[in-house]
Formats: sequence, structure tokens, C-alpha cells
Amino acid sequence: MRVLNFSAGPSQLPEYVLEKIKDQMMDYEKCGQSVMEMSHRSQEFKGIIEKTEKRLRKLMNIPDNYKVLFLQGGGSLQFTMIPVNLFGENKKAAVVNTGAWSKKAAAELKRLEWIYGHETCVIAASSEEDNFSYIPKDFDIPEGIDYLYICENNTIYGTKYKKLPDTKGVKLVADLSSCILSEPVNVSDYALIFAGAQKNMGIAGLTVVIIREDLIKKDDRIPAMLSYYVHADKESMYNTPPTFSIYVMGLVLEWIEKEFGTLEKLGEINRKKADLLYDYLDNSKVFKGTAAKEDRSLMNVPFVTGDKNLDAEFIDFAKKKGFVNIKGHRSVGGMRASIYNAMPYEAVEKLVECMKEFEKGVLGNV
Amino acid sequence: MRVLNFSAGPSQLPEYVLEKIKDQMMDYEKCGQSVMEMSHRSQEFKGIIEKTEKRLRKLMNIPDNYKVLFLQGGGSLQFTMIPVNLFGENKKAAVVNTGAWSKKAAAELKRLEWIYGHETCVIAASSEEDNFSYIPKDFDIPEGIDYLYICENNTIYGTKYKKLPDTKGVKLVADLSSCILSEPVNVSDYALIFAGAQKNMGIAGLTVVIIREDLIKKDDRIPAMLSYYVHADKESMYNTPPTFSIYVMGLVLEWIEKEFGTLEKLGEINRKKADLLYDYLDNSKVFKGTAAKEDRSLMNVPFVTGDKNLDAEFIDFAKKKGFVNIKGHRSVGGMRASIYNAMPYEAVEKLVECMKEFEKGVLGNV
Repeated sequence: MRVLNFSAGPSQLPEYVLEKIKDQMMDYEKCGQSVMEMSHRSQEFKGIIEKTEKRLRKLMNIPDNYKVLFLQGGGSLQFTMIPVNLFGENKKAAVVNTGAWSKKAAAELKRLEWIYGHETCVIAASSEEDNFSYIPKDFDIPEGIDYLYICENNTIYGTKYKKLPDTKGVKLVADLSSCILSEPVNVSDYALIFAGAQKNMGIAGLTVVIIREDLIKKDDRIPAMLSYYVHADKESMYNTPPTFSIYVMGLVLEWIEKEFGTLEKLGEINRKKADLLYDYLDNSKVFKGTAAKEDRSLMNVPFVTGDKNLDAEFIDFAKKKGFVNIKGHRSVGGMRASIYNAMPYEAVEKLVECMKEFEKGVLGNV
Repeated sequence: MRVLNFSAGPSQLPEYVLEKIKDQMMDYEKCGQSVMEMSHRSQEFKGIIEKTEKRLRKLMNIPDNYKVLFLQGGGSLQFTMIPVNLFGENKKAAVVNTGAWSKKAAAELKRLEWIYGHETCVIAASSEEDNFSYIPKDFDIPEGIDYLYICENNTIYGTKYKKLPDTKGVKLVADLSSCILSEPVNVSDYALIFAGAQKNMGIAGLTVVIIREDLIKKDDRIPAMLSYYVHADKESMYNTPPTFSIYVMGLVLEWIEKEFGTLEKLGEINRKKADLLYDYLDNSKVFKGTAAKEDRSLMNVPFVTGDKNLDAEFIDFAKKKGFVNIKGHRSVGGMRASIYNAMPYEAVEKLVECMKEFEKGVLGNV
């Protein structure tokens, strides 16, 4: 029996996708091979990667002057690739510190100081003093930076930018790992978007970068694998790309098209799912959400009882009923329900029922 | 119907592995999830990665003072990771130039010159003047280098070191991408071994590094994702590893254990397979091998007819009979049969039969 998997990533996949992978395992579209066995230079794989990019472009409405790159190394490698490629005359970037992932991005920026010989990172704003429970707003954009970096959805703390910062013309770079494809975005607002695939797009080992074409510059001092120019120039085929992960992403996009049609429609359903859970949390006597109301994520919903033992009890109670990975991130504790695209509305209903049942038990014992 | 896939990589997988993936697709060992959906921090995935490492250590007889790392980015990212981590007092390495991949390794070394402020790469020896048809031997080890770099099996040119160079105590770093697990190696002879998984270990998107522990040094100037120290310290879990690719690798190792038991046994069969093909090539009036006899690879067998049109005719003839990806690398032309571990002896027999039939037709027409 399949469980309901609330993992923050890698995370639950649509059964449609798993079934299709299974069906095509021994023989993809009568070519006599599994996708795993295909040469990345084959016509068959070319068809897969082109179709995947086309689907992403259509769903996200990506303008023609943006390139889509299929890379490896996760967000963590982007933390280095972004500065070495996007640094301009200032060789400095500003980061909005909204949690563990933006902190890591800042740390990797700082690590480059010995190469450039000066401060490479400045913190534009931070919500650290309040345990990252909100998104900083109305901060000043620092002078003398090449770009502003944000983590748009904070998986661990369950916060999300509802409105992008006004950068006053400075380039905006954003980590969309845990919110990409969850609702429409206006790609033109960004200089660069990146996202790991393992939350809303597929499986671990694939990172998608969407970058404005005029920012891709040839620079022979950058290691080839870290150069957007090299990857763009070779259409993500400079070396062997993670072929199977790209195929899975294509299937996830196919499923979104079939199931929802557009990101507008998918966004509506995601809002309904999140509202259901947040409404319950706001009315519960046992559970409460930890993120500021106005900044609540549609994808990651952290909550606590306020009592560590009771938290552990609930996690156990839920697990026995087939709700897994509901435990909060090790750095914050409590619970977290990641309700990505692949998590159906009915599953969130079931989770709320489970929480209500637990609440009843707790209140009955008082 | 499944074809016989002679691709140089990604390449044919054992049907045992594909069937097992298929069986476990919806539910891995009754945990209610696919491996693709598992949190990399879950007990289930921990079990998978630990078992995979254990199997690799046993098969390759990896000494305890070597670490095994599961990384992303392929050999191409290693070309940068190796120098930034292994450079010592000289900040310079020597490369033996045996083809396209060692050339790329040298190019990435050279790209670091602006950072270190001096020449970072010297070519110790090269077979380029003879189109890389042999492995240079008895060359001098350059003075003032931190390590000697070799590509042990040259996928494109079909050459392989039968004896490692005597480095006179200098550290040896080797790319084993297309020969790892094909026969036993003495890991202690190397400072570092790396290999992409997509030839003999599984699927694209996973790179395995085997490194002597004392060479792993903390250096905060290295970007985290490029640091062996960071990956070793976090047991390949600094960020989300390519979980599914690690699982597939585990299944390939399981298959090797079940089917062959040891690399000694597997090496014997690989030699038999290669001998069959080389013997035919040495006696054919139409086909001939292109690599120097004493340096012939067990894994990649390039051959030509000496006539481009006839080459194309054969490739087409073979394809119609279900032998695919027999075309040589775009940089050299002709044909190439990659006969990795997953290619059974019987398939090589069939290929030779196919070549004999073609030869008969050609000679009959003379």
C-alpha cells in the first residue's frame, strides 16, 4: 500500500508518472531500450529533452529571450555558478536572508572573496532574529551590487514572497526550488531562476536554470562545468546530462498538462489545499502554524503543538495512519507538511481529519 | 523487442536491474514509496546508500583508508575538483594526453592559471601525433608537479593502460569512467580514482570518487560543492545526492555479485568477449581495429573498413539486425562496439556473426 508522503524533497510523485516509467522501463516507445540506456546523443533522447523544454516553456510562459538549462549539482552548485557568471563591474551581490538556504548562498558568495580580493556579499535584509518566520519587506537595495538574491519559498520555515522586492532596476536572482510550477510566475521579473527538480518537477540530480540570454557571457576563466555560456552553447549537452531525470521531469510536466492544463488552474488548487490546512491550524486548540500569516507558503506548512513530546506523539500517530515524513526539519523541530503539486486535495483533507482526531484525543485527556 | 545496444555511454543495463527497478517502482520493500520519492535523510535511503558503498568496497577491495564519494557533475566537474582539492605546494599537475577526455582535463587545469598566477598544467606525454592510437610509455615524470593525471581507458580511441605508469612516488589520479568494474584494480596504486556511473555502474548523473583519506583537506576557500572535504565530512549528503542513480548503481553491483561473484571472474569474461572480437578483426579482410594491439581496451573496440561509405553501409546493415549505436564517435568516425559488463558474450558472438555476414557480402561483390 502506498503511503501519503509529506516529504520536503525528494517528495511524492504522481502515480501517473511512476506508472508510465514502469511501462516504458524495458522499451521506450518501441526503440528497444530503456531511457536509462539511451545515448544522450541519440535521436530518441533528443526528442525527450526537446519535448521537456517545450513543455516547461509553455507552462511557465518563458519568453524567447530566456534560455533553459538542464544541469547537475543542485541549488548548492548554483550558489557558486551564479556569482562566477553574473558578477559584473561590482563583483558583489546582496542576499535577503530568509533561512538556511539563503544563508548557504551567502556563505558561498563570501567564499569567493580570496579570488576577487574584496567583500563579495552583503546582506540586504534578514528575518533571522525572528527565527525566519517572515519575509523582510521594504528594505533598501544596497548600492554597488551586481544582483539581489532571494530564496522565494523557504522550505524549512514555510515562508514565501507574495510580492517580489522592488529592486530599483538591479537584477533579481531567485531560488524557486520549492515553489516552481506551483502557480504562475512572471519570468521577465527575474534575471535568473533556478530550481532543483526533486520537489515539484521530478527527482533529485537535476537542476533547471532559466536565465536571460543577454546575461550569458563567454569567459574562459570559468571552469567549463560552471559556465552558463558553455552549457547554453551546447544546449545542456556539454557533457552527459542526467538523462533519466530529464525524462522524469518531462513526464511530470505531461501530467500537469493533462491534469490541470495551466499553472493558473494548478495554482488555484494549491491555494485550496493550503487554505484547508491553514484554516484548520488557525482554529485548532492544539496545533498552530509558525510562519507569519501574510508570508505563508503554499507548498510547505510547518506547525507545532508547542510541546515537543506532543509533537513526537502526533508524528507517530500520523505515521501509523500512513502519513509519512511529517516531521519538521531537524533545524527547527515540530511538524511540516509539504504539499507539493503531486499531493492531492483529498490527501490534505485526510491529513486534517487525522489532526482533528489527534486533537480530540488530546483535548479529551485534559 | 529489446535491441543490442553498443553505446559508449549511457549504455545497456542488465535486464535484471531494469526488471528490479520496475518491480520496486510503486513501492520499495513495502515502505509505500518509490525510491524516487524517498527523503534522502530517510532510513530507507540510508540503507540503500550504505549497501551500495559496501558492495563497491567489497567488489573493488577498497582499502579502509580510502573514502567513497557519490557526487554529481560527471568527469567534467572532476577536472576542476581534482586540482582545487589536490594541489599542494606546486599548484601544478601533469597530464598524459591520450585523447579527448585527457585533453579536456588538461584544458580545465589550464583554466585555473589566472587564479594561481602561474602555469598549472604540463603535458607529460602524448599520443596525439598518432591519432591517440596508443598509450605513451616510458616517459619522464615532470619535476615540480602535485600529481600525474591519466585517463585509464579511452572510450573514443579504444586504448587502455595495461600497466600503470611508474610515477616515482608522485600521486596518480585516474579517470576510470569507461573501465571501472571491468576487471580488478589495485586501489592503493592511486591517490584518486573517479568514474561516471553511466557506463559500467548505472545511469548518467552520478559520479563516484574513491580518494585516499589523507588527501582530503579542509580548505574554506573551496566552494562547498567542489570540496572533497565537505562531501566526505557529510558522507555524500551535504546536499541532496542523486538518490535514484545511487539506487540503480546498487542494483548493478548486486547483479555483478550474483552473476559473476568477483571482478576476477568478470574480468575473465570481459577478456573472452574482447578476444573474440579482436581475433575476428585481426583476421578480417574487410574490418580492422584502430588501436595498437598492446593497448587494446576490453570495453571499447573501435574499427574501420577504411572506406567511409562502406562504414556507413555496415552501420546500417547492423542496425537493421538490431545492433544499435555501433557508429564511432563523431570525432573519429568508423565503428565502435562498446562491450561493457552488461553486454553478454553471446551478444558479441552475434555481432561477429553479423560482421562475418557483411564481410561475405562485400567480398562476394569484389
